[in-house]
Amino acid sequence: MPILTLSTDFGVGSPYVAAMKGVVLSINPAATVVDITHAVPPQDVRYAAIVLDDVAERFPEGTIHVAVVDPGVGTERGLVLAEIGRQRFLAPDNGLLSRLAARTRPSKIVRLTEPGFWLPDVSATFHGRDILAPVAARLSLGLDPDRLGVPQDRLVMLDWPEVRQRPDGIDGSVLWIDGFGNLITDITRAMLADHWAWDRAIVRCREGRVEGLSRTYGDRPPGTLVALVGSSDRLELAVVGGSAAERLGAGVGDPVELRWEAGLGLGLRTD
Amino acid sequence: MPILTLSTDFGVGSPYVAAMKGVVLSINPAATVVDITHAVPPQDVRYAAIVLDDVAERFPEGTIHVAVVDPGVGTERGLVLAEIGRQRFLAPDNGLLSRLAARTRPSKIVRLTEPGFWLPDVSATFHGRDILAPVAARLSLGLDPDRLGVPQDRLVMLDWPEVRQRPDGIDGSVLWIDGFGNLITDITRAMLADHWAWDRAIVRCREGRVEGLSRTYGDRPPGTLVALVGSSDRLELAVVGGSAAERLGAGVGDPVELRWEAGLGLGLRTD
Amino acid sequence: MPILTLSTDFGVGSPYVAAMKGVVLSINPAATVVDITHAVPPQDVRYAAIVLDDVAERFPEGTIHVAVVDPGVGTERGLVLAEIGRQRFLAPDNGLLSRLAARTRPSKIVRLTEPGFWLPDVSATFHGRDILAPVAARLSLGLDPDRLGVPQDRLVMLDWPEVRQRPDGIDGSVLWIDGFGNLITDITRAMLADHWAWDRAIVRCREGRVEGLSRTYGDRPPGTLVALVGSSDRLELAVVGGSAAERLGAGVGDPVELRWEAGLGLGLRTD
Repeated sequence: MPILTLSTDFGVGSPYVAAMKGVVLSINPAATVVDITHAVPPQDVRYAAIVLDDVAERFPEGTIHVAVVDPGVGTERGLVLAEIGRQRFLAPDNGLLSRLAARTRPSKIVRLTEPGFWLPDVSATFHGRDILAPVAARLSLGLDPDRLGVPQDRLVMLDWPEVRQRPDGIDGSVLWIDGFGNLITDITRAMLADHWAWDRAIVRCREGRVEGLSRTYGDRPPGTLVALVGSSDRLELAVVGGSAAERLGAGVGDPVELRWEAGLGLGLRTD
Repeated sequence: MPILTLSTDFGVGSPYVAAMKGVVLSINPAATVVDITHAVPPQDVRYAAIVLDDVAERFPEGTIHVAVVDPGVGTERGLVLAEIGRQRFLAPDNGLLSRLAARTRPSKIVRLTEPGFWLPDVSATFHGRDILAPVAARLSLGLDPDRLGVPQDRLVMLDWPEVRQRPDGIDGSVLWIDGFGNLITDITRAMLADHWAWDRAIVRCREGRVEGLSRTYGDRPPGTLVALVGSSDRLELAVVGGSAAERLGAGVGDPVELRWEAGLGLGLRTD
Repeated sequence: MPILTLSTDFGVGSPYVAAMKGVVLSINPAATVVDITHAVPPQDVRYAAIVLDDVAERFPEGTIHVAVVDPGVGTERGLVLAEIGRQRFLAPDNGLLSRLAARTRPSKIVRLTEPGFWLPDVSATFHGRDILAPVAARLSLGLDPDRLGVPQDRLVMLDWPEVRQRPDGIDGSVLWIDGFGNLITDITRAMLADHWAWDRAIVRCREGRVEGLSRTYGDRPPGTLVALVGSSDRLELAVVGGSAAERLGAGVGDPVELRWEAGLGLGLRTD
């Protein structure tokens, strides 16, 4: 039986999350429900899109991911099922799935229009509980997704700040900030691949400046600002034993500049 | 096998919650344990009573709900099992179940007096772990609730602010505040039923004043203060894309006044 | 099938926790995964060591506990499996298991050196996800722990402030602070056993001074500072209906002084 995950902006400890789980378990008492996060900042569709894109692939094939960050609940925005890779996603069609879909073209998109699979009384303000939760539970029991509604060609896609490759480096930005205050950027290991093993990198964000990439946090003394490629294969800035977000006063969207300064020989090989 | 839920004021991430789960799983390793919330403000029995009343019914028949907000732990207050509707509740008898019991008369109340079903060593300060958790686990394995102790006639009932219907409107108050800062009131859809589809409503809370009820948040521009009947079938005040609690500086218990001003034709039909 | 627990400093709601669960469930979709806590303060190995020591024993025999507070991730510090009592622990060998191991000598310690049981690509910054999670999942499916690596004699042990028994009392300190603001000390029920039923105890912490031990919080009026032996069998200071940490401005490590003043007859018998 497939795993079912939940990602929302309801806040950690919100009873709204429990209401969704109650609905799922009322339909499929044997469902395994896993929280991805409920700490998405209120209405921050982009934040949730990034988290889903980074974490979903860690779950098994067949997992059903339910994501609810839904400022347009009850308006004309659609609700969709999307099959991406070998997993299924249920979400409002507001860009929440757009990072996933930009990497891997969805093999199926269905707009949820068939109320027979929803709760009998659908509120205007909580479609996560009244539509997505019962649909997810029914999918976990084997319901054919084609029965959920009508096929749809494409998802709503959000624009993201462009990462620019330059001859002397890369211009990116802070994508999200984790619980340690590490600044996770949109500059990926793949973008660095041609360079970083042999050249010196200078990374700048706000007043912070780092020479050379570290392999891991503990390579430098406590309190040092470091730059490294983290566990999501993204360039990040971190303070050893501290918070880079606090040190630099940095936030999501702040520019991060990487420059190669050839020939100085301080770069660290990190394979 | 029935679902088992936990609601406490231990704080999100508290190891006390884990201790309760450990006890449950030691007795019934196959139990499905679901968190309702652990973010009840410390010792706030009323908050927990409201949450349980709003969320419990979403869970399947047979669910065993364990609730621990227990300022009187170790004193003379009793611990009870109550059957309400088709679910079971285990809690201190301090009013925690009084909203549920006011709506639906318990079909059975048993005061827990039979230590044979508790942990061997019962502390004076953590009956959630030492008494309620093992009792819940044993109930989930099929234990007859009558064996837990002695029958009891009624639960401790808390008084709640009265909602007053007036010829020109309704006087209520803020019941709780959700993670978005929405002010959830004690004015229900049922109380509004005779009026709201055709009359204009003016809703006031602190300095806030709203004309007309919205159907959902996204009907109005970001930043607008709106009033609507939310997903718990209660009147709520919300700021589109923001926090009404912050905007109005409002808290639990603040008066909320709804007035019908007939004939102005601005009311929104919301069915 | 054994229960699997997670304890980390990733922060409540962190997607890193979800990534670990995804890895576990990809290997063993039937695993029961329980959160102990993710609210360990960042890099606070001592805090996690205390929580694990207090909570682990509540879980069933055979439970596999995974703990990740790992400031040295990617450096030379080892990762270990330890069998302590009838449970298994997977953690960095940085003192995280040292309170458990001080009480109960591990019957087996294996340093994890066999990459065949890890994820194929191991990052330098997230061994919880890339090594501990897959190893835990495989153990839950029956893998022989001896295959994980090489035997090791002892764990890294941290020093803890010594509790001093004196003729007229005990000198201890604040070990951790729970979600209610209760100050949990390193003075245990066992240390008190010879005295406390018949003698008067004076407990001091910062500006706070308490005469006599209470049996439970509710024995005294709201707002009273009390001292009692709490649910972990440790002396704690609490404010009835409030927060002792806030009242006293106290923190972890602050000295707590208990003195016996014989013959004054104010001690409370508490068995």
